[in-house]
Amino acid sequence: MLGGPSVILVEPQLGENIGTAARAMLNFGLTDLRIVNPRDGWPSEKAQTSSSGADLVIDNVRVFETTEEAVADLKFLYATTARPRDMFKREATAREAAFEMREAIDASDKVGILFGAERHGLSNADVTLAQTVIAIPVNPAYASLNLAQAVLLVAYEWFQSGTHQHADGNAGGRARLGSKTEPMASNQDLVHLFEHLEGELDAAGFLRPPEKRPNMVKNLRNIFQKAQLREQEVRTLRGVIKSLTVFARQKALDEFNKKNK
Amino acid sequence: MLGGPSVILVEPQLGENIGTAARAMLNFGLTDLRIVNPRDGWPSEKAQTSSSGADLVIDNVRVFETTEEAVADLKFLYATTARPRDMFKREATAREAAFEMREAIDASDKVGILFGAERHGLSNADVTLAQTVIAIPVNPAYASLNLAQAVLLVAYEWFQSGTHQHADGNAGGRARLGSKTEPMASNQDLVHLFEHLEGELDAAGFLRPPEKRPNMVKNLRNIFQKAQLREQEVRTLRGVIKSLTVFARQKALDEFNKKNK
Repeated sequence: MLGGPSVILVEPQLGENIGTAARAMLNFGLTDLRIVNPRDGWPSEKAQTSSSGADLVIDNVRVFETTEEAVADLKFLYATTARPRDMFKREATAREAAFEMREAIDASDKVGILFGAERHGLSNADVTLAQTVIAIPVNPAYASLNLAQAVLLVAYEWFQSGTHQHADGNAGGRARLGSKTEPMASNQDLVHLFEHLEGELDAAGFLRPPEKRPNMVKNLRNIFQKAQLREQEVRTLRGVIKSLTVFARQKALDEFNKKNK
Repeated sequence: MLGGPSVILVEPQLGENIGTAARAMLNFGLTDLRIVNPRDGWPSEKAQTSSSGADLVIDNVRVFETTEEAVADLKFLYATTARPRDMFKREATAREAAFEMREAIDASDKVGILFGAERHGLSNADVTLAQTVIAIPVNPAYASLNLAQAVLLVAYEWFQSGTHQHADGNAGGRARLGSKTEPMASNQDLVHLFEHLEGELDAAGFLRPPEKRPNMVKNLRNIFQKAQLREQEVRTLRGVIKSLTVFARQKALDEFNKKNK
C-alpha cells in the first residue's frame, strides 16, 4: 500500500504544517515528501513534533533549492491550486487525478503533486511545470482549506482510488454489516422465528380481523428481514418472545395468588 | 449548497478542535453543528478563534447534555468510528454514506453524523444510537486521523456527492426499502420503543445478570437499528410487545379462573 505519488511542498512557512502534512500523507500511504526551500530551514523540530510519529515520512524528507530540481525525476506532475489561474491548463478534481496517478504508477511512471506556500500558493512558474492542475471542489462561499488539509484530501483520494471497492472508479459497493464472522440465520431459522411470534400473536388476538392477517404478517416479517439477522440474533429474539409471554403469564398468576391468599 | 447533515461532536475536549471542525464543515457546505457536553463549556473563545471566520457554523452551535437529546429529531444517524466495534452493525465508507445521506436529505429526512471525543471516540451506547457506522479507509499501519480531519473527510465526501461529476456515479445509494412516502422513525421513536421492550424484559428477568445487561441491550437495539424502521413499523412493534405481555397476563388469569370455577 505504501509508495504512491511524491508530495512536494514549495516554500512552506510553518514547521507545524509540514509535520501535519507528513501525518496526513502517512495516514493514506504516501511516504515521499520533498520540500523546496522551507522558510525556517530543515530539519525542523516543530515539523517533527507535529508529525505525531510519522517518522517514516519525516526522516526521509529531501530538501531542494528549486522546484525544478525537486521534480526532475518525475514523469507526471500535478499542481494544486485554490484560485483559478489565467492559463490554459488541463484540470482534474482530486478524485480524477487520483485514478490517473494510480494508472501512471501502475505503469512504473513516477508521479508528484505540488502544493504551494500557505500564504500565496504556487507561483505561475511552478504551476507551469505541471501537466495538470488539481482543483478541490469546495464551498465557493467559504473556501479556506489550509496546506495540511489540502494534502490530506489529495492523499485520501489517492488511498481511496486503490481500495477494492473503488478500483473501477465508482464509489459503489454495498454497505457491509460489521466484521463479525457470526453466520447469517438460515431461512428455516427465520421461518421458525416468524411462526413462533405469529403463534403468540394469534393467541393474543393481535393478528385480527382475519382478512387483515396476511398483510400484518407480511409487514412484521419484513421488519425482521430488513435486519438481515444472524443465527445468534434469531436465538435472542426467540428468547425475548418466550420471556415476554411465559413470564407475563407467570406474573399474572403470582399476583392473582397473592391477592387471593 | 448549504444545509446537509448535522454534525454532532460528543464530549469534545479541545475548543481548537471544535473550531477547526466548524471550519472543515463550512468548507464543504455543512452548517448545523451540535455539541454534546463539551469539556471546557460553551461558548469557547478557542473554538471561535480557530474557526477562521466560520461564524455561520459557530454562532449557531447548539449544546446538549446527552447524545439522545442531540439526535432526537434525526431520522438517519451515522457514527464514525476508528476502531472496530464488537457489534453487528451496518457499515459504510464515508463515500457510500455521503450518497446515502444525500438521498435521504433529498427526501426531506434529517440526517446526522456522530463524532466521538478526541481521546477515546464514541461510547458503545452512542454507536448503538446510529443505524450505520462510517469507517474511513486508512493506512492500517498508521491510522492517526484527528477529530477535525475526520470531520473534514466526511464533509468533503458530502460535498463531492453533490457535484456534477458524481451525480450519476453509481455510488451505491441506499437500497431504498419500500415506499418512499412512509416516514422513517425518529431517533426518539426508537428510544421509546427500546425502553418499552427493555422495561418488559427487565420485568421478565430476561436481561440478567446485571453485569451482562448492557451488552444484551446493545445487541437487541442493534437488531432493530439494522431494520431501519419506519414510523408505522415502530407502532406495529410496540403493539406486538403490548399484545404479548398484556394478553399473556389476561390469558393466564382466564385459564386459572376456568380451572377454579
